[in-house]
Parts: sequence; C-alpha cells; structure tokens
Amino acid sequence: MAAHTVTVEHTLSKLLQEKRYAAIRDVLATMNPADIAAVFNEVQSEQRPLLFRLLPKELAAETFVEMDPETQEQLIHGFSDSELHEVVDELYVDDAVDIVEEMPANVVKRILAQVSPGMRKEINEILQYPENSTGSIMTTEYISLRPDMTVTQAFERITRTGVDKETIYTCYVTKERQLLGLVTVKDLLLCPDKSTKIEDLMNPNVITVTTLTDQEETARKLSKYNFLAMPVVDSDGRMVGIVTFDDAMDVLQEEVTEDIEIMGGMTPSDKTYMRSSPVDLFRHRIPWLLLLMVSATFTGMIITNFENALAAQVVLTAFIPMLMDTGGNSGSQSSVTVIRAISLGEVDFRDLAAVVWKEIRSSVMCGIALACACFGKIMLIDRLLLHNTDVTVTVALVVCCTMVLTVMVAEMIGCTLPIIAKKLGFDPAVMASPFITTIVDAVSLLLYFGIATLLLFR
Amino acid sequence: MAAHTVTVEHTLSKLLQEKRYAAIRDVLATMNPADIAAVFNEVQSEQRPLLFRLLPKELAAETFVEMDPETQEQLIHGFSDSELHEVVDELYVDDAVDIVEEMPANVVKRILAQVSPGMRKEINEILQYPENSTGSIMTTEYISLRPDMTVTQAFERITRTGVDKETIYTCYVTKERQLLGLVTVKDLLLCPDKSTKIEDLMNPNVITVTTLTDQEETARKLSKYNFLAMPVVDSDGRMVGIVTFDDAMDVLQEEVTEDIEIMGGMTPSDKTYMRSSPVDLFRHRIPWLLLLMVSATFTGMIITNFENALAAQVVLTAFIPMLMDTGGNSGSQSSVTVIRAISLGEVDFRDLAAVVWKEIRSSVMCGIALACACFGKIMLIDRLLLHNTDVTVTVALVVCCTMVLTVMVAEMIGCTLPIIAKKLGFDPAVMASPFITTIVDAVSLLLYFGIATLLLFR
Repeated sequence: MAAHTVTVEHTLSKLLQEKRYAAIRDVLATMNPADIAAVFNEVQSEQRPLLFRLLPKELAAETFVEMDPETQEQLIHGFSDSELHEVVDELYVDDAVDIVEEMPANVVKRILAQVSPGMRKEINEILQYPENSTGSIMTTEYISLRPDMTVTQAFERITRTGVDKETIYTCYVTKERQLLGLVTVKDLLLCPDKSTKIEDLMNPNVITVTTLTDQEETARKLSKYNFLAMPVVDSDGRMVGIVTFDDAMDVLQEEVTEDIEIMGGMTPSDKTYMRSSPVDLFRHRIPWLLLLMVSATFTGMIITNFENALAAQVVLTAFIPMLMDTGGNSGSQSSVTVIRAISLGEVDFRDLAAVVWKEIRSSVMCGIALACACFGKIMLIDRLLLHNTDVTVTVALVVCCTMVLTVMVAEMIGCTLPIIAKKLGFDPAVMASPFITTIVDAVSLLLYFGIATLLLFR
Repeated sequence: MAAHTVTVEHTLSKLLQEKRYAAIRDVLATMNPADIAAVFNEVQSEQRPLLFRLLPKELAAETFVEMDPETQEQLIHGFSDSELHEVVDELYVDDAVDIVEEMPANVVKRILAQVSPGMRKEINEILQYPENSTGSIMTTEYISLRPDMTVTQAFERITRTGVDKETIYTCYVTKERQLLGLVTVKDLLLCPDKSTKIEDLMNPNVITVTTLTDQEETARKLSKYNFLAMPVVDSDGRMVGIVTFDDAMDVLQEEVTEDIEIMGGMTPSDKTYMRSSPVDLFRHRIPWLLLLMVSATFTGMIITNFENALAAQVVLTAFIPMLMDTGGNSGSQSSVTVIRAISLGEVDFRDLAAVVWKEIRSSVMCGIALACACFGKIMLIDRLLLHNTDVTVTVALVVCCTMVLTVMVAEMIGCTLPIIAKKLGFDPAVMASPFITTIVDAVSLLLYFGIATLLLFR
C-alpha cells in the first residue's frame, strides 16, 4: 500500500489553525530556507504574516530571499517598519537588489528607508548597472586583506567582518582598491607559520571581469576556472565586488532557459511556466507565429506559381511534406548544434569556414543515405505495394535528387545563420528551428519544382 | 589600428624552439590550470612532454586534469612510471575516475598500478556506479569530524588532513559513518569559544542524496540550496562521499546540451561540436532523419488520399505549407516550454490537468489571432492585390477554421506528450519539435481536408 502523503504545507496550515505555535517553530527549525519559502508560496496568503513571525530569527531573512516576488510583496505590505528593518538589515546587498528590482515603487521606497545609508548607496549603485551586466548581479560584500597583514591578522579580520560577507573562503588582497592577488581560507589554515605575510602567500595571478562584462560570460568563466567567486573590477581596475558560484549557477540556468525559449520560437519570459498566465503564454508566442505565418506565405506563392505543373502531376504534391519536413529537420539539427556551441564559447566567427566544411561533409552523407532510403521506399511501397502507377522511376529520381540538395542547403543555412547572427550582434538562438524551417521550406520547394521541370516537363 | 594578437601558444612554441626553458617556467607560472591545459591541447604533440616537464610541480596535476583525453593519453604514453606516479598521486579521486573512464585498457592498468592501494580501491568502487548516477561523479575525499570534538580539535584535523580534500569548507559530522550534521569553516571561525563541542555547533538538518540518485537531480538540489557540496549516502544511510559545486555546474551544462541535442532531433553526443568529425555528426543525425522521413510518408499518404479533391481545387495546395508550419511552430512552442519546465523540476505528471487547461486557453487566443490575420491577408493580398479569383471567401474560411483547430490540437499535443513521456520513463526532450511537427503535420492535413469536404465539396 502506498503511504498516505501529507505535505508539510498541509501540516503547517493545520497547526496554524489550531494555534500550536510552539510546534510550528519546531517544524520550521528542521527545514532549509528554500523549502520553507516553498511552503510560504503555497499556503493561503492570510496565513503568511503569522507564519513569518514564527520563523526563527536567523532563518527569516534567508527564507525571505527565496520566496516568489508576489509573496515577498504581500509580506512587506503587512510588515511594520521595524519588522521590515529587521529583515532587510540581514540581507546581502545582491539579494536586496534582486528584491528591489521586482517591487513596485512605493515598496522600494519603504525598503530603502529601512536599510543603512551605506547599504542604500551600494544598492543604488548596483541598480544603475545595465541589465545582464555583471555589475547588476554582483555583491559588494567580500573580504579584502592588505598585503602586509600576517596570517594571524587576516584571521582576525575575517572573524571580525566575516558574518556579513557572502563568502569568506576567498579573500582578495587589495592596496588602494587595486586587486593584487587572492588567498583562500584553505591557504591560510594550512599555512604552518602564522606570521607569514599575506603578500608571500597570495596567488598574484587573478582572473577578473568588469562590471560591464555580460553576466553569462562571467558565469562561464567562473565555471571554467572552478572559482567559488569571481572578482569584479571597474573600468579603472579597482575591485568593486564579487559574483558567487550560486548566483553564477542561477545565471547559467536562466540563460539556457532563455536560449531554449528563443530556439522554440518564443520571446523569452521572466516568469516560470507555472507562474505564466495563458495571456503571458499568448503574448510570448504570437509575434513569432504571426511572423512565421506571413513568411510561410512565400512557400504558398511558390506552389501557386507551379500550380499548372502540379495539376498535371498531382503525385508530386504527395512528396511535398516529406521533403519540407526532412529539410526543416536537418536544418534545425545543424542550427541547434551550432547555437549551443556558440553559447558554450566553442565556436565563433573565425570558425565559420571550419564549421561549413564539417557540415558539407556531414550533409552529403546524410543526404545520400536519406535519398537511398527514400528511393527504396518509393519503389517498394508506393510502386510495388500500393500499385500507384503515377509514381514512375523519374518521379522517384526527382524526389531523391531534391532530397540530397535540400539536406545540403538546409545544413548549410542551419550552420551559417547563427554564426552570422552572432557576428552582427543578434542572439544566435533566433536562428533556430522555426526560422530555419521557413527558409528551408521555400528552398526545398524551389529545388523540387526546378528539378521536376528539368526531368519531367521537358 | 588593431593590436597585433600573439597567442600565448605561439609564444611558448617559440620559446621551446629556442630552448629558453627558464622563460617558459616564468610564463607558465602566471597562468591558470584551465588556460595552460588549453595551450597543451593546441601545441604540436611532440612539444607536449617537454612542456609538461617544465610545469611547476604544484600546477602539473591540476593542469593535467583539465586537458583533452587525447592529450592526456599521449602524455601518459610518454611518461616514465615514476613521472606517472607523481601526477596521479596528486589527483583527487573523482578526477582520477574521469581520466580512467576515458583511457584505453592498457593505460588504465598503468594508472592503477601507480596509485596508492587505498585510492585504487576507491577508484574501482566509483567506477562501479551506473553512468549518470551520483556515485559516478562523487569524490570520497571530504572532511569528517566527530561530534564530541571541540572547535580547536576540528581545526587541527582540518589542517592535518585538508591538503588532500577537494573542499574543506563544509565538514561532515559523522558517528559510525552515519551523517549527523554539518558544520562550515565559517561557523568554526566565527565561533567565539573554541572549546565548543562540534555537536553543539553543527546544523543537524542535512539534505542528502544517495549514490544512485540521478546526477542531474543532485546538481539541481545543490543549486537549489546553494550548497558548496552535497553529501552522498549509501542505501544504509552511511556517508560515502560528496559532490562539489564545480562538478555540479558541469553536470547541469552537460545535461542541458544533451536536452538541446535531443530537442533538435539528434542522439546526444559526448564530444563537443568542434571535436566531432563529420561522420560523428552523421551518426548522431541520421537515425532521427530516417525515422522522421518515414513518418512524413503518412502525411504524403493523406495528400494522396485527397488527390482528387486537390485536383479539383488546386488553390488549396498553396495553403498547405502555411498550415503545416504554423501547426508545427505552435506545437514546438508548447512542447519546448513544457520540456524545460520538466527539466527544471517545475512540472510533473500531477500538473497535467493544469498544464492542459493553461494551454487550451493560450491556444484559443493564438488560434483566433492567427486566423483573423490570415483571413485579412488572404482577402487583401491573394484576392484584391493578386486577383486570384480561385481564392473565394469559402476557401478563406476553410483555411482559417483549420488554422484555429490546428493550433489548438498542436499545443495540446505539444504540452501533453512530454509529460506522458516523462511518466513512462522516457526522456521528455524526445517529444520536441521534430517529433511534434510530424504528428501535427498529419493532423493539420486531416483537419484541412475534412473541413474542405464539409464546406467546399458538398
């Protein structure tokens, strides 16, 4: 027998109704912030303020950060100024910025009134960086050490200031705000002589990004070098903040979701699927659908142009979907592969010739294999099995020649368009399957009718 | 004027030719392991062994781990046993496993002969976990503390054993190998009273995964909770290893690439794009192309069935590509969105009804908007501008009704198939655009001819 599954939301709701507050505290204390936040998003909104007040103080801010913006906003509306102060005072700068970015103006005002003047200044600075820049996701709370400190002094500094820092494990050695090197807590702990100077222990080969570096590039760099945090410098090379690995992971996930949405022919959305309304879905989908419908009209016009030929040889019509689909599929295969390779930083404009040459060879193989299979299928099934006498060897040849050429052209278009788009400053993901399909459809029909005219209608 | 770009590979090659070894050492010492490994992959293979011997000892193993398998294999062939010993002795267990997995049997034998018996046992154990399981990517080198230790004793233990551990910042408190809780170096450093017992400082709410948990699930959990490392337990709840954030990031990237490849209608590949030969590309692409070509035949058969109707009203043929493409595009929009939501753990089988209801409402909006645009376009462009007298109001109505129904059916199929595939234990990504397109093509044609028969051929 399957166990009766009781969700923790259900349990907590019940306990709230029965006013068993001590029990609620005990349950919450066993949970992680991310899981508690999920409970807040699920429970009835009128239960949230009470539940929040029952949270152990040290968990409150961490949990608040993980909640949906709607839940956060509703809670803030219910907070007194001093309650709000208690929460925002505990936030890391980058988390505070994330929240401020999602809130309406009046809530932002209340939040900024409750933070310390120093933090307010930092929040405002970070808010000014362009969207998707590294500056907009960094935090200014890192540990900096002076080069002439000893290991013992470094530990004192970490212990004194560490509680408010997002990571203490990588410390940055600066002099007049210039970044000289970095030293890890592991280096400090394993250093046998605690009077060693930091400048003798530090690694002076630092990899940095600037506040204006694209956030995806920063995340990829962090991942490449396996860093816990990536130091961020301003245009004068002064250290201004760090991006931590957990934020980098989130950036990579968001960018991938955006790429996938664009590749699927949608404008990217900030909201997750379950939080998107049907109207949201409609708004993100209809522009591309309309655009692609209009461009598919050209395909229709090509067919109209050859209406007479088709009326004379209606059997040709039956192969149109197969040719169009196969062209679209091979085009989308190469475009998707190349788009991903571009995202991963593996392919750029300099590789264009190498990519094209690779795709030509692969497409010849695919085209010939498909044409052979197709020829066999037409002769065996359509002609012998279904006794369709309209399907002559010449018709089969027309179809197969079109197949080879279509696959070659499709892979060619599929691999070059994303690279060119990237070079021109567009998002390569736009050049994925829906877009490629529309172009390849027109090309495959033109090839089809061209070859048919040559072989059938002379 | 653009600066003349000299790559560091070029510089190092030159220095090698001129035998300026001291300069090479100095250059390498300024670089990160990931960048040095890139140089090794680029330089001529006969230069690699000499270059490797010039690497500062502490960088050698870290750099080796980051190289391409081909480069690693070539270097190992050139190593003496003692050189091989020096490198493998410095490796973390999980990195050693990664290398062993890529090497041919004779190289594996040489490697295993050079590692310590304890590490050999651990490598063999990890090698036995199924592919894609958490066990296969974990490392067994973590720091464990006893609950009755004091903070001072914990620091002593970390200092003594930390040098060989992949992360020292999260320590695991175990008793008879059962995981009781965790404590971070931050907790230890910030604890004012160094005689505090670990059991009083530790966080007993631990989130764990098992050795058999899917590696993607483990990586997602780590990202959700912002962990530096995720503890792994065996089926009896005994702690056996950890997965660190950098490996989790790599897993997430690999899984996404795999999803994107499958969504693009390819079998997933282990090799990166630039390292894939045309034959590799062919082998990963042709199975789906053949399968989809065969299924597109059904679409052709539907057209053959309605050949007489089409011969009487050839104008209908011109709208086939537009209807098929729009159907395919809306189907792929919803399938791609839902597949991504499934990957992110946002949607599962329980949400089927909610998803369908959301998609029905969105598809009605999309369908009606498209139909209106299409009706306007047909009447204005085809009829008024191009004077195509075959295009009657009835034909336009047939096209537009088909449009609404096709979009609805396409979104329905697009959102349900991935969820059902997941439930049946298949990869939902298989149900993306190429597959959906083929089904939707057939459906849209059937609807088209059905509606045409009703309205035109009575």
